[in-house]
Amino acid sequence: MLNLQSTTPESWLHQVEANLEELLIDHAHCERKAAACALALIGYYVEDTELAAAMTEIVNEELEHYHLVIDLLTARGLKFRRIHPSTYGSKLHELIAKHEPQRAVDRLLIAGLIEARSCERFGLLRDRLADRELANFYGSLFESEARHHSTYVQLARKYTDEASLRQRLQELAAAEAAILADGDDFPRMHS
Amino acid sequence: MLNLQSTTPESWLHQVEANLEELLIDHAHCERKAAACALALIGYYVEDTELAAAMTEIVNEELEHYHLVIDLLTARGLKFRRIHPSTYGSKLHELIAKHEPQRAVDRLLIAGLIEARSCERFGLLRDRLADRELANFYGSLFESEARHHSTYVQLARKYTDEASLRQRLQELAAAEAAILADGDDFPRMHS
Ligand SMILES: [Fe+2]
Ligand SMILES: [Fe+2]
Ligand SMILES: [Fe+2]
Ligand SMILES: [Fe+2]
Repeated sequence: MLNLQSTTPESWLHQVEANLEELLIDHAHCERKAAACALALIGYYVEDTELAAAMTEIVNEELEHYHLVIDLLTARGLKFRRIHPSTYGSKLHELIAKHEPQRAVDRLLIAGLIEARSCERFGLLRDRLADRELANFYGSLFESEARHHSTYVQLARKYTDEASLRQRLQELAAAEAAILADGDDFPRMHS
Repeated sequence: MLNLQSTTPESWLHQVEANLEELLIDHAHCERKAAACALALIGYYVEDTELAAAMTEIVNEELEHYHLVIDLLTARGLKFRRIHPSTYGSKLHELIAKHEPQRAVDRLLIAGLIEARSCERFGLLRDRLADRELANFYGSLFESEARHHSTYVQLARKYTDEASLRQRLQELAAAEAAILADGDDFPRMHS
């Protein structure tokens, strides 16, 4: 359903569980960036009013998530700050085709894959974190990220035919899995 | 109250009244860009949670305005599209100081002045447009842009002292008036 081609390994879970503060701070930044990406898409495809409506909803939801994470940090006495982002987002961005309409397809599918990966990891955190408050928090976000994934894939359908969409989604999902397998040394939501 | 140093001339009103389609299309783009600027500020000043809360509200409101303008275009059988933007925004951006904390002050005050100018022009459109449906529409947006202006100026207070803020606001407002007096040949919300 999420179109991912790998499952997050135990090692990631152990790494972030030992660094929950960094995970949460990175997560907040991810939510903000998800909102910014959705908003940018409205500007790239101004004539696509269906996209504009869907992206507006996503902007609002991601900013809501952003504030939920910040509130959680505050409740735990942790200070929100800038941290070095994972290389995941920029590596995925390099895969976006330079020409339309493929550029639209790629932008939407990559946004969809990022949502899918967040969703998969939120599910893992929900099921396995010893910190049950945090586990429940991730459980509460799981469904909306799954929905965002579907929204992005659905919107991409307008810019290509179904066979090409399935093929490109597989290619990008394979690349996404490879980027994560390469990974970053430091603990992040998408390390 | 709006801290502007010029009043929009009759000539602007006549120019946009003769080009309402372009005015509306440009207006929609302005609302989208206002949302994007507010969202970017959250990312620039992540530790300022008061700013994050205020900007989140503004992002949501500007996107709401965006859709109201798009709906109006649709109702009038007009097609939303890209158009050449006025030079106003980029000229104002060049005035932003390169170093913090002045950079934060300038970003916020310039965002505040753009809101103020929108508000002033919405007031003029409300009072003077022969197209009363459109006049009422602009009347309905007037108050929120005035409020956005105050929000930005208020947030800037955290990054400087009151005397410096007043002085910088005057400088930037003078520059804003000069940029508009220079103007663009084509009809835009901020031409
Ligand atoms: Fe989210
Ligand atoms: Fe999401
Ligand atoms: Fe607005
Ligand atoms: Fe505004």
